[in-house]
Amino acid sequence: MDEIVAAKVAQASELLREFSLPLWIVQFARESYDHPQPVQELAVGCSVTWPAAFIVTAGGDSIAIVGTGDRANIESVGAYREVIGYVRDVGPPLREVLERFKPDRIGVSYALNDDGADNISHGMYLMLEGLLRETPYAGRLVSADQVLIALRARKQAVEVDRIRASIESTGDLFKAIERELRPGVAEYQISDMVHEIVQSQGMSMAWDRKYDPVVNFGPDSSFGHAGPGQITLEPGMLVHVDLGVKRNGYCSDLQRVWYLLRANEDEAPAEVQAPFDAVVRSVQAGFDVLRPGVVGWQVDAAARTALTHAGYEEPAFALGHQLGQSTHDGGALLGPRWPRYGNRPEMPVDEGHVYTLEYALQSPAGIIGVEEDVLVTADGAEYLCPPQTQLHYVHE
Amino acid sequence: MDEIVAAKVAQASELLREFSLPLWIVQFARESYDHPQPVQELAVGCSVTWPAAFIVTAGGDSIAIVGTGDRANIESVGAYREVIGYVRDVGPPLREVLERFKPDRIGVSYALNDDGADNISHGMYLMLEGLLRETPYAGRLVSADQVLIALRARKQAVEVDRIRASIESTGDLFKAIERELRPGVAEYQISDMVHEIVQSQGMSMAWDRKYDPVVNFGPDSSFGHAGPGQITLEPGMLVHVDLGVKRNGYCSDLQRVWYLLRANEDEAPAEVQAPFDAVVRSVQAGFDVLRPGVVGWQVDAAARTALTHAGYEEPAFALGHQLGQSTHDGGALLGPRWPRYGNRPEMPVDEGHVYTLEYALQSPAGIIGVEEDVLVTADGAEYLCPPQTQLHYVHE
Repeated sequence: MDEIVAAKVAQASELLREFSLPLWIVQFARESYDHPQPVQELAVGCSVTWPAAFIVTAGGDSIAIVGTGDRANIESVGAYREVIGYVRDVGPPLREVLERFKPDRIGVSYALNDDGADNISHGMYLMLEGLLRETPYAGRLVSADQVLIALRARKQAVEVDRIRASIESTGDLFKAIERELRPGVAEYQISDMVHEIVQSQGMSMAWDRKYDPVVNFGPDSSFGHAGPGQITLEPGMLVHVDLGVKRNGYCSDLQRVWYLLRANEDEAPAEVQAPFDAVVRSVQAGFDVLRPGVVGWQVDAAARTALTHAGYEEPAFALGHQLGQSTHDGGALLGPRWPRYGNRPEMPVDEGHVYTLEYALQSPAGIIGVEEDVLVTADGAEYLCPPQTQLHYVHE
Repeated sequence: MDEIVAAKVAQASELLREFSLPLWIVQFARESYDHPQPVQELAVGCSVTWPAAFIVTAGGDSIAIVGTGDRANIESVGAYREVIGYVRDVGPPLREVLERFKPDRIGVSYALNDDGADNISHGMYLMLEGLLRETPYAGRLVSADQVLIALRARKQAVEVDRIRASIESTGDLFKAIERELRPGVAEYQISDMVHEIVQSQGMSMAWDRKYDPVVNFGPDSSFGHAGPGQITLEPGMLVHVDLGVKRNGYCSDLQRVWYLLRANEDEAPAEVQAPFDAVVRSVQAGFDVLRPGVVGWQVDAAARTALTHAGYEEPAFALGHQLGQSTHDGGALLGPRWPRYGNRPEMPVDEGHVYTLEYALQSPAGIIGVEEDVLVTADGAEYLCPPQTQLHYVHE
């Protein structure tokens, strides 16, 4: 029995009642080991080979219709109470199940604005339409994006515990990194060390290991989602690390900065300290307005304004995204109302959401990027680990 | 530079000319590390965070339109000659590129019948339609499934070399397994050993490691895609292993069987030998008719008829699937014309395709399953490793 999947399937029924949707085809996919779907790990629990429909109703029913070869695996997950096996054609059992409930609308997991709720391929959507042709249900398919977004976003206690564990492991990795910071060490060596520790502890990287961690030494290191390179650390350089791990299925995503003091320095120069302080204050400004009911772009605006009012350039990215089984977990985004973010900055923050808060600035000594992970509580927010408020110093 | 992706992007232009399609949006996706698309590894080469369009034309142009943060990674893959970065909205550069070529049809990577060619989510398809609304191109979107299926299926020499290397490693694993086969060893121990060797050699499993390898000892082991269990090996039992590895991005998929002789036996009983011979002969019957131009179901029918004419039950699955970067690599399927297989059994076999040939029967001593990997040549087919034609014996 997979406790997360069982809990989320139960939560799905509650959400269907909240959003007044009678029945939801949570997933309709095939070959989902080779082509994993966004909510497979959260609400299905294993992969399937043949076309399979996973159905939840507002009344609390949960039904999986799967090729017979997949049946044993679905049963061992134990989250769907009824498992129907088929040999030749998924169509007849699917139509029978719909006929049993006669839903006036059928939720399907697709979304224009949220990759995490966009859980069906275009070909499978067309197949579903084809299977329901000449039934009353063909015209009843609607997007279940709101339900799916809420299901991912509103973390249950067992999910928050796993995120905390992931963040704790990340804190240990930052300590290990700090011990390696000395003149002459190369960016890629830090990355290699992190990969080795993560693998030895049975965890995995939270995103593409080519740029998880991002490691930037000094001003010439490439910013954005680039991989660690050959640049070696020298006094007077900033060290910036963006790192996330996945432990027991849930991710962390944190950024930290260090400054390698020159022989004659006992603190960073003002041209480094000032933008660092500005980044920290802008992240804190976002944190201060984060609470249930606030809309995503408002949180970003609080942080963005803090930075621009301090005289710095506006970041070309969002303040924060949700965090869960994926690093970019979808749903409300703490970002500006730019077309590339769709309607996600317009979505409200809710209790149980977990967000990153991250801003960055370029300085003459290198990139300054700070990123925190926070949980939205009933009346505010809570840092999931102590935030970075001071520039860490490394002595040569 | 990624040599496979560069070769496949060049091949894509050739295929567009062959199939008379002027322009193809090979991939339109976002957050593709968390949600990898089926042809990303083959024809894109890395993941993207923001909505990104990868475009190939019949004239040999290749253009990537990506969020600026993804730009450096796409450039380092080096397969798309022109890389256009955007900050806020993928729409304007996408419309500009289409306006440059004015294609009368625009291929999009979706497919009803082939998961490997179903390379766009329904939400992203709707986004693409939205971006082209009020342009002449909105009504010109067509499925590029034939082009994509051919691109995956027709292996280049560098791809076949990688499959051969994967198969060679699998052969070594079968030898390691054979050395462990003795009374008292449990199914899961064989699986654990395989995982350890595969990991230590920097390879990965070709499908879900929960049931790769499948390990079946004796008649009570569960068939289908079930994981190895607690059953221990005893004399008089058959050992069946279904195993695939992924090495340098390409997969193997093979099945082998052994028989653990009882103290008083020097060969397997007839009730084991006879179905083993029937399975081997049916696989060979499929191999004998495999050549360019034959249609998938005809190959399956040759093998299926060989088995039923020998008095055995018809298998509930297909004789063979294509093999490549995925274990189930899509395209023509050597399977019966059942609805669950869509139109894939109707598709023709072509030179450069790589197939599995696999059939199985239950016997009183356990499951007999044999699977070979074969390359289609100009006038026939070639086994990519020596096929199993004799039952392997293990002496107590």
